[in-house]
Amino acid sequence: MRKLIAFLFITLALNGLAQERKYSTFYEQRASLFNLLPVSSDDIVFVGNSITNGGEWHELFEDKHIKNRGISGDISEGVYDRLESITKGKPKKIFLMIGTNDIAKNIPINTIAENIEKIILKIKEDSPETGIYMQSVLPVNPDFKMFSGHMKPDSIKSLNRRIEKLSHTYNTVYIDLYPEFLMQGTDKLSPGIPMTDFIFWVKDIYIGPRLYHLI
Amino acid sequence: MRKLIAFLFITLALNGLAQERKYSTFYEQRASLFNLLPVSSDDIVFVGNSITNGGEWHELFEDKHIKNRGISGDISEGVYDRLESITKGKPKKIFLMIGTNDIAKNIPINTIAENIEKIILKIKEDSPETGIYMQSVLPVNPDFKMFSGHMKPDSIKSLNRRIEKLSHTYNTVYIDLYPEFLMQGTDKLSPGIPMTDFIFWVKDIYIGPRLYHLI
Repeated sequence: MRKLIAFLFITLALNGLAQERKYSTFYEQRASLFNLLPVSSDDIVFVGNSITNGGEWHELFEDKHIKNRGISGDISEGVYDRLESITKGKPKKIFLMIGTNDIAKNIPINTIAENIEKIILKIKEDSPETGIYMQSVLPVNPDFKMFSGHMKPDSIKSLNRRIEKLSHTYNTVYIDLYPEFLMQGTDKLSPGIPMTDFIFWVKDIYIGPRLYHLI
Repeated sequence: MRKLIAFLFITLALNGLAQERKYSTFYEQRASLFNLLPVSSDDIVFVGNSITNGGEWHELFEDKHIKNRGISGDISEGVYDRLESITKGKPKKIFLMIGTNDIAKNIPINTIAENIEKIILKIKEDSPETGIYMQSVLPVNPDFKMFSGHMKPDSIKSLNRRIEKLSHTYNTVYIDLYPEFLMQGTDKLSPGIPMTDFIFWVKDIYIGPRLYHLI
């Protein structure tokens, strides 16, 4: 009997643990690292998913105050849930690019927009002096044989309209990258900027002439 | 006929492209970024797989000369193939931790050791002044319900003996992290250092008292 109770207890405990885990192992690893790493009022924080995560931004800008807070695969709710580790340091600026994985997961546009609104409100509440830079979700090109689940141009455009509207409502900067990355006359990511070549992203998104002056 | 030729040409070209791709999209993205980012003789470069990739090392050490050249999922051959982008800058030190994904992919220990030897030889040839720090492969714990494919303790121990031998042969520093991370009396990663909590890795691997003086 004691063995059975012990067995049940362990089984329930393990189930409990499994159920408590809302995000991936990678998310938990990065988020727990971010809890440890300080953010200061001199910092410019890039927040987002794999597009942010994959860059070594402080090297590209040669600026140690640029902090990478990207998590590959992250969604809008994931950003909200780990925002405290960033806002508690009251950074100078936050650049946000989030939503493409939400769309791939079929999360309704309304829910994504609500989460992004919650993110803006939390930044404003925790750190009113932080400059907020909202970026549009980028187009996708299924011809590259990857991220085809992200290829929902109507959803992307609809979400971007919501992000732009939120940006105006809350008086943040809106950076509309979407048209910059389009193949002319289509809804597809330009083949000149393939997902396979991250350099182009890096250069054109953050160190191109359109954005550099923001840093 | 012209259409058929065009079709065949495009099909063959696409096949050719597909066959040319040796590594994952993520590898290509990171490797192409690394080609763009400079490395200097003041730099300390951390080279490896996800264990390296996941950290924001320059923040942890508060040292802008620490460069992250990790690629999640990378193997010994992958490191060799992208080594030029690092050695051409003739960095001060290179810390290498590679091999656990090779083992998960059932690459023979002999092949992994040969690749690691090639890595050491290339560093020595391209940049003789670079300090080389070889790290052992870490234990794994399948109880964490992930990385169970990496749980081949005999292979890990065998590879570590080869890395240690290579380190002595080529007069590099060997850092034996393996025993530090074991659960006593087992071949498993200590549950005190779960894969789910990256902080512990970060702290104990690189900023713990055993290693800090190396930087």
